[in-house]
This record gives sequence, C-alpha cells and structure tokens, in this order.
Amino acid sequence: MQVSARNALKGTVKKVLPGLVNSEVIIEIAPGVEVTSIITKTSADNLKIQEGSQVYAVIKATDVIIATD
Amino acid sequence: MQVSARNALKGTVKKVLPGLVNSEVIIEIAPGVEVTSIITKTSADNLKIQEGSQVYAVIKATDVIIATD
Amino acid sequence: MQVSARNALKGTVKKVLPGLVNSEVIIEIAPGVEVTSIITKTSADNLKIQEGSQVYAVIKATDVIIATD
Amino acid sequence: MQVSARNALKGTVKKVLPGLVNSEVIIEIAPGVEVTSIITKTSADNLKIQEGSQVYAVIKATDVIIATD
Amino acid sequence: MQVSARNALKGTVKKVLPGLVNSEVIIEIAPGVEVTSIITKTSADNLKIQEGSQVYAVIKATDVIIATD
Amino acid sequence: MQVSARNALKGTVKKVLPGLVNSEVIIEIAPGVEVTSIITKTSADNLKIQEGSQVYAVIKATDVIIATD
Repeated sequence: MQVSARNALKGTVKKVLPGLVNSEVIIEIAPGVEVTSIITKTSADNLKIQEGSQVYAVIKATDVIIATD
Repeated sequence: MQVSARNALKGTVKKVLPGLVNSEVIIEIAPGVEVTSIITKTSADNLKIQEGSQVYAVIKATDVIIATD
Repeated sequence: MQVSARNALKGTVKKVLPGLVNSEVIIEIAPGVEVTSIITKTSADNLKIQEGSQVYAVIKATDVIIATD
Repeated sequence: MQVSARNALKGTVKKVLPGLVNSEVIIEIAPGVEVTSIITKTSADNLKIQEGSQVYAVIKATDVIIATD
Repeated sequence: MQVSARNALKGTVKKVLPGLVNSEVIIEIAPGVEVTSIITKTSADNLKIQEGSQVYAVIKATDVIIATD
Repeated sequence: MQVSARNALKGTVKKVLPGLVNSEVIIEIAPGVEVTSIITKTSADNLKIQEGSQVYAVIKATDVIIATD
C-alpha cells in the first residue's frame, strides 16, 4: 500500500506503553532519534505492535510544525 | 519555549521549495532521514527558514499514524 | 500494509481537480456518498491517482468531528 | 450551522463505546459502510449521542489521507 | 447544529485573503485577539465569508498545543 | 522559540483536569473567552502546567474550521 502522506519513516519499536484508552509507542527511526506515537489500544492490538516490530511512522507534511530557537 | 507536542526533532533544513501559497521544507533529522513539512509561505518567511537553518520538526504524538507491512 | 488509523474506506475516484499546489480528489465510497480529500499535487502524481482508481480514504478516528442538528 | 470542512457525511449511530476519557462512536453512513469517531466523553454526553442518533461525520479534506494497494 | 469539537469561539471576520487554492481568514474573537484560519477557497465562497461576517472558529481540543516560555 | 503555527494565543490557565491518560487544560485568552486543550498527562507534568500558569495556545491555521449560523 502506498499512502499520500509525505512522511513514512521506517523504524523499530523501542517501547510500547499500553494505557486504558490509548497506547504510547516509541519508534527509533535512526540511532538515538525517536518518534512517539499515540494510537488507540485497539489499533495497537490489531497491528500486533510490540518491542522490535518493524513499522513506519506515517505523518502528513501539513502536520509537521517547524520551530526555531 | 517548551511545547506540549511530544516530538520536537532537531534537524537541518536541506531544501525549501517556496510555492504560491505554501512552502515545502525538507529537514534532515539524521543522516539520510528526512522529514517533509508544509507550512504557509508567510510562516516560512517570518521564521527566515533557508537551507542550513537549524530547526525543530514539532509533531503531536496523536498525528503519528503507524503502518506495518 | 496495515495502518493504525481506524478508518480505511474503500472507494473509487470520481474526480481529480489538480491545483497549483494541491489536488482535490473526490472518492465515492458508496452509491451517492462521496468523500473529498486534499493532498499535495506531488502525492497525487506519485500515487498515479486518476478517475476510476481504486483507493482507500484513510482517516484517523480522532479527526472525525460529530455534529448534530 | 454550516461548516467549512468539506465532508459532512450524514449517518446513523450504530454503537457508542464510552471509555474513561474518550468515547468511541461508530456511525453507519451507507449500508455496510461505517466511520469510527473518537471524541471526548464530555462531548458525547453534551450532544446526547446514542444508538440510533442521526448525526454528521465532519471531516476536513486535508485530514483524508489516500492509500492505494 | 452542535459539534463535538470543544472550542467554538464566536467572532467577527476582520480580513479575508483569497488565494489561488486557499483563503486566509482572520477572525477577531475578543478585542485585539485574532485567530487565523486557512480553509479552501471553495469553502470560503460556499459560506459567503466576508469582512464583518459573524462566525465561529471551531477547533478540536486535541489540536490545541500548549507552549510555555 | 518561534513556531510556524499561525496562532499562538497568550493566556492564563484557569483549570487543569488531570485524567488517567490525558489532561484537559482550560486557558483564558481574553476576559470570558476560554480555549480548551487536551494534551497527554505526561506533557502537562513536563510543562508543570497549573492554575495561573502563563501559556500559549498554539493552533495551526489549517486546524481552525469556520462555522456560520
């Protein structure tokens, strides 16, 4: 499947913090560079996401805000 | 300034593609790992974003979709 | 590829309105029920989206606002 | 009230799954075609959403990602 | 119509900047406090938005990022 | 830090409702005008947000939907 979102960052799941409602998933996309995703617990279970899973962090370009010091 | 968004990925601007309405900004957040952001041209001008600028890609955790092959 | 977004509505592209910056894509997901998506022209070209294409409208559950009369 | 969001899909609430924090609302927008929304429990209570309610699924066109096989 | 989005800020349109693709709408929600919205030109035309129009700025609570100095 | 989001509304925190997963933060941006934000509890703790805190409500212009009666 291809998606129209401009960012599909390949990475490895470092940690999954299942909550009551949502699950927090920490993905390493490069040595020492992590992206945090929050998805519903249902989705995390459906996708069988666990430590070591190979995943893509899919992010729309319009959802990336730029900040400068 | 601190922000509540869980992801603030430090990186270097590789390319700025100014459009009529929006500007496309390509940020390298790790060797060979790029994030594309689309912001309004006004914002790109206000923040004086250009190639080589040090910036943060700020992304809410709830805006990160996870995909698996 | 599976995605964590809870909505992946299968449909047929009815119309593509390419703009300078973005392309507007009208997808029929059921007889007489259409969903409008706006993606960047680059993405529309990359995915070779045209009238008749079979696609999925992928929407996060948290991006669906509910309104009542 | 009219909204600027390009998608206002009329439908019937099939199921409401109240959680501690959020409520999951399943809306049938065409025979066999369902859209899942996650809103805060407060909003679900304020709008008195229950099975059989007639509602609109309001979705911005820029929040609709397109995927192709 | 009621919406599940937690913020519906009543205000007066101060300025409309029609672009090729999108229109920028500046809304005064309190003396000296303005909110900028970017919607498609089609939506701005459909809603007949012009200077002086009474409108609501509808914003999901999950789309409000908090920043501190 | 400057951000590309077009709205950075300065205000005072009126109420913080910590939940299990998320925290609801009510910000007064003008006398009698409040904005509700929902962020993760982790973020609320990290930013030490409490009643009386001076904060900014950061909102992308594309996340502001316009509604008219």
